[in-house]
Amino acid sequence: MTKKTNKIIEPKILRGTRDFLPEEMARRNLVQQKITSVFERFGYDCIDTPAIEYAETLLGKYGDEGSKQLYRFKDNGGRDIVLRFDQTVPFARVVAANYSQLPMPFKRYQISKVWRADKPAKGRYREFTQCDIDIIGTKNLLAETEIAKAMLAVFEKLGFKEFIIKINSRRLINSILDSLMVKQEDQPAVMCALDKFNKIGRAGVIEEMKLICDEKTIENILDATLLTGTNSEKVEKLEKYDIQEVKNFLRLCSQAGISETFLEFDPSLVRGLDYYTGIIYEVYVNGVDIGAVCAGGRYDDLCGLFTQEEFSGVGVAFGFDRIVVAMETLGLLNDVRLNSEVLVIYFDEETLPKSLEVWNQLQSTGIDTEIYFEPAKLQKQFAYANKKKIRFVVLCGPDEVKENAITIKNMDTGKQKTIPQSQLDSYFKGYTNL
Amino acid sequence: MTKKTNKIIEPKILRGTRDFLPEEMARRNLVQQKITSVFERFGYDCIDTPAIEYAETLLGKYGDEGSKQLYRFKDNGGRDIVLRFDQTVPFARVVAANYSQLPMPFKRYQISKVWRADKPAKGRYREFTQCDIDIIGTKNLLAETEIAKAMLAVFEKLGFKEFIIKINSRRLINSILDSLMVKQEDQPAVMCALDKFNKIGRAGVIEEMKLICDEKTIENILDATLLTGTNSEKVEKLEKYDIQEVKNFLRLCSQAGISETFLEFDPSLVRGLDYYTGIIYEVYVNGVDIGAVCAGGRYDDLCGLFTQEEFSGVGVAFGFDRIVVAMETLGLLNDVRLNSEVLVIYFDEETLPKSLEVWNQLQSTGIDTEIYFEPAKLQKQFAYANKKKIRFVVLCGPDEVKENAITIKNMDTGKQKTIPQSQLDSYFKGYTNL
Repeated sequence: MTKKTNKIIEPKILRGTRDFLPEEMARRNLVQQKITSVFERFGYDCIDTPAIEYAETLLGKYGDEGSKQLYRFKDNGGRDIVLRFDQTVPFARVVAANYSQLPMPFKRYQISKVWRADKPAKGRYREFTQCDIDIIGTKNLLAETEIAKAMLAVFEKLGFKEFIIKINSRRLINSILDSLMVKQEDQPAVMCALDKFNKIGRAGVIEEMKLICDEKTIENILDATLLTGTNSEKVEKLEKYDIQEVKNFLRLCSQAGISETFLEFDPSLVRGLDYYTGIIYEVYVNGVDIGAVCAGGRYDDLCGLFTQEEFSGVGVAFGFDRIVVAMETLGLLNDVRLNSEVLVIYFDEETLPKSLEVWNQLQSTGIDTEIYFEPAKLQKQFAYANKKKIRFVVLCGPDEVKENAITIKNMDTGKQKTIPQSQLDSYFKGYTNL
Repeated sequence: MTKKTNKIIEPKILRGTRDFLPEEMARRNLVQQKITSVFERFGYDCIDTPAIEYAETLLGKYGDEGSKQLYRFKDNGGRDIVLRFDQTVPFARVVAANYSQLPMPFKRYQISKVWRADKPAKGRYREFTQCDIDIIGTKNLLAETEIAKAMLAVFEKLGFKEFIIKINSRRLINSILDSLMVKQEDQPAVMCALDKFNKIGRAGVIEEMKLICDEKTIENILDATLLTGTNSEKVEKLEKYDIQEVKNFLRLCSQAGISETFLEFDPSLVRGLDYYTGIIYEVYVNGVDIGAVCAGGRYDDLCGLFTQEEFSGVGVAFGFDRIVVAMETLGLLNDVRLNSEVLVIYFDEETLPKSLEVWNQLQSTGIDTEIYFEPAKLQKQFAYANKKKIRFVVLCGPDEVKENAITIKNMDTGKQKTIPQSQLDSYFKGYTNL
């Protein structure tokens, strides 16, 4: 590295986008691998769709209203393009275009980047990762059950000890509001108010509802939805409403081995104004104030934009970035290392052939091993190993070459040891899990 | 799935972009996992950069000339944006912005999508995957050696038997052309002609060179570069030129265990008009006429756009899409399956609890298992298993429930067998590699 002078460009990136350097990337990759392994355990297969699509295709659902949040532009051929803003519309398109050749019901996962032309803020990015599973082509509640089981398995696999999958039914909410004579056209606003319970509290919800309902109705709504007790106690209190779906779902969950410790029926759960039609879910992690880390539910007619065939589905999105933050906060990613296990020292030109031989030997026994690229001072090479958190440094200097030996330094303990080269493989067999 | 009528949008995608359905994605994921595992074996760490960047940042190198090939647009805030078109410029930016906190030399891999507003054609896409490794911050030839060793390891890991890493030195080419009195300003055109040897043959190359050099010079250039024989025979013939770098590199490669079977010194290799300054590489696979599947070389001052610090580096890009095509052509991806190993049949409502129990049991022993979502006809459920190439189907009908037994059908052989439920785990232990 020598100095020179010429005009330089500031190496900056757009606000709301991120570079991920090795240590952060190692943590993200580990999280993604663990999530993916659970998806595969349940038989979800991976698909991928283009990041750029025709605006007309992706915007059918949102029209011009959503377009302020979109990266939308004309390409060189004058085509109207948008960057993918979620994975749901592309999934619907893929199913509509390919359903005759897909296994049905169709289960897929997709983990990819999406883009939103949002104002960036803490935890809100213009480019971020979405991570979805969906089942399409069945109305059976067993699909909802499997999704709940998969959510549970993901958060267990990631090492979370205390978390809760909250569930509710849109059918139930609608039946409560219908029974309490809330007019169809007022129901969205009432649900919207209820959805803010965690943010604005009981008093705030009442304040908002007053714009729509009389006080008696509000009281009835809150009595029906803000319940305490076990899941079955809550179910019992709601027998006069359309509770059958929730009952069946909870029974299936129990048969599928999902403990109530992790599954809470919350009749006040609304899940925004989205297109859900049946069971809805949200997952919260104790000890991290970051909102839902996973959410979704049953939706009917997902592919209606693209085909006359009707497909009902159920799916959830895992908040990848939030999950990483939650795990970092709880110390679940403290032990993540970079890739190398061993650094072979480049002592000098004379001994380099032996060092190359040792490098070969370690690599061919399956140990992630690198060699330093220059005959730099030992101190500098050790510093490199420390910076990359490499656990072992292997040295073949003139003394070692003479005696067919290897000196190994454990960088965690600082201890070092000289052994015959022939014992190298067996030495490392005990230390690595490769 | 029931029919309905309303206006539908054609579920089409842009030419030059692709949806990847599960079977293709399974193959791509396997290829990526294998490549990644080799990168990690050599101590390359993963980084990621945004897909959208300031045009000014990414275009410094190409100016307006390259911009026809780019997706470039103004965002809602009027910022001039481009989609990432390679991983090299973003890597240079990352190094320039972070070098004081990175380990040096710095080794990274990046596998991500890039976008080119090219005319789509067979094998040329507007959105495709790049897969790069680079070492930055050392001028030592050991870096070139490691890259060659990593290339070899990648193609071996992927299962290729016959492939060749061609190498040459830009220093050598320049010294040949200097010695033969080709003027500095004519050298790029001469190299460009030579680079087309595989496409247009000896006669074509001579035709092109005639526009620049006299016939004697052309003959000398071809005599010096179109050599046959072993690597050391070629080296010997070029002793009067600047051959030292090639000699040292070949010696290091040999010490690092790279067999000459896979490494060919080709003095006519040019590697386009790119910014290389030392050793260059191209990898070809026998039996697949698809061009180079991996290429790169040494470049000086990669980060010059972004910083006054000078960084020399060496790196190669693996042609991910070409590698997948080559592997498919050679039958190296024929055995790739989707994720599920076992499908549990949903026989009827009565027996569902037992089926759920068996599903739990298999999953908790680490076997990728799914359950069918509806009590459909057995034929339909078997067809689903066949479509997903699921190897085993497990049935717990009324007879099985009565006797605490399980019927297992091997979908590959068609054979079936009824065993006590207690033997389920041990039955599958022999069949799966999980």
